Amino acid sequence: MRALPFLYLATILETTQVIPNNLHLLRPHSGLAGHNVEGIDCLSWRLAVETDNIRSWSTVPEDCESYVGNYMLGKQYREDCQVVADNAYAYAKNLTLGDDGLDIWVFDIDETTLSNLPYYAQPEVAFGAVAYNSTAFNEWEAKAIAPAVPANLDLYKKLVNLGFKIVFLTGRSETKRNATAENLKNVGYTTWEKLILKPTSEKGTTALVYKSTKRAELVAEGYRILGNMGDQWSDLFGTNVGNRTFKVPDPMYYIS
Amino acid sequence: MRALPFLYLATILETTQVIPNNLHLLRPHSGLAGHNVEGIDCLSWRLAVETDNIRSWSTVPEDCESYVGNYMLGKQYREDCQVVADNAYAYAKNLTLGDDGLDIWVFDIDETTLSNLPYYAQPEVAFGAVAYNSTAFNEWEAKAIAPAVPANLDLYKKLVNLGFKIVFLTGRSETKRNATAENLKNVGYTTWEKLILKPTSEKGTTALVYKSTKRAELVAEGYRILGNMGDQWSDLFGTNVGNRTFKVPDPMYYIS
Repeated sequence: MRALPFLYLATILETTQVIPNNLHLLRPHSGLAGHNVEGIDCLSWRLAVETDNIRSWSTVPEDCESYVGNYMLGKQYREDCQVVADNAYAYAKNLTLGDDGLDIWVFDIDETTLSNLPYYAQPEVAFGAVAYNSTAFNEWEAKAIAPAVPANLDLYKKLVNLGFKIVFLTGRSETKRNATAENLKNVGYTTWEKLILKPTSEKGTTALVYKSTKRAELVAEGYRILGNMGDQWSDLFGTNVGNRTFKVPDPMYYIS
Repeated sequence: MRALPFLYLATILETTQVIPNNLHLLRPHSGLAGHNVEGIDCLSWRLAVETDNIRSWSTVPEDCESYVGNYMLGKQYREDCQVVADNAYAYAKNLTLGDDGLDIWVFDIDETTLSNLPYYAQPEVAFGAVAYNSTAFNEWEAKAIAPAVPANLDLYKKLVNLGFKIVFLTGRSETKRNATAENLKNVGYTTWEKLILKPTSEKGTTALVYKSTKRAELVAEGYRILGNMGDQWSDLFGTNVGNRTFKVPDPMYYIS
């Protein structure tokens, strides 16, 4: 039973390279939202991760690999994302924007606007239960075929319609600018005010410090950060975090 | 089926008034960790609440009353609390404390160190699905029979053994000092450095501002806040939040 989703995935991943935006094809037949594993309570582990009670962890506990895989490919992850996006939109649509074009919404990219699930679902990555391989991940990013996170692409479109300017603020390296812009456009993020990538010179800076610095620059330029959405707490803590922050689920990795 | 846990509860609550510390008696026979309700995905709602994506909500959605009730009385809530406490202890035991007695751990009280579940499980409270009744809740608090949150009582004892000084910082009114102290002592919280209750004069202040101010006073007195644990984000956001914060689950109410 436990091996089944992965066999199914192996087949699906071939397809995904061709039609990367059909993220739903990755959904396992069972539609499970994960299951308990003896020894570790994976639901509790995930809640503790999402609430920032467990910090600086490097890989998904081995016992929770199947749980996290089933969660990410199942309907629960999609519904969890949808509820966050719905609440973000409920907040955003009640705001009155200025007519100076300085009201912005900051989006993180990976696991917020773009999904790396086709990469993470590979057996050798195992939804984050195997140690991070920067070479392999860089190769995946360069392909520029990451699908959108459906709920957040929909939110993005609604925010653009409301008049928000969009700023993408990502820990992706500046060297990935072309691939990232291409990927964003291809899946439907067709317009933005700024796409801020991490300069190679700041490679060693934590996401928390790097993103706080970049947000401070935005504020200094006169922008008003009304919303800020990311899958890591390091997107949402620090300084100039914005009037409201929204934490997107991500039990696959931790960035400090 | 859905009515069964509440019938069972009605019987158990009688017992609870006599032996309030036996919180496990409130556990429903099914041991369920909650179930889905059509219309609202209550798991997603709870995750969004725990991650502070849904703010300033006043009552549990009506459709999620049974879900929240089953969650709070089932094993998942207990395990979720245990994982948070385990991670707090794992962090605390690796710290080196000074010998000046100024290393403190700040605990919130309601739903962090003391549990109001016997109150919240009453049909007329419905786990927070009915609007807050301050008169009834004050009467419950005055009885001083709230049981401990088991995982956090255990953590408290371990922290005291490690040499931490304990500071209870609560939104309970100063007028509740005697009842609160009596309740804490009766269930096993037998020692503390300070028990800080909210002065009547600050009744209108938000928890976020009030608790930040009190923590600033602690820091000004020379205390080092190494850990800070609460069930509300307003316990953990603001200023002087401490070196590490720990969010205890609470899907029953929201305090800003």
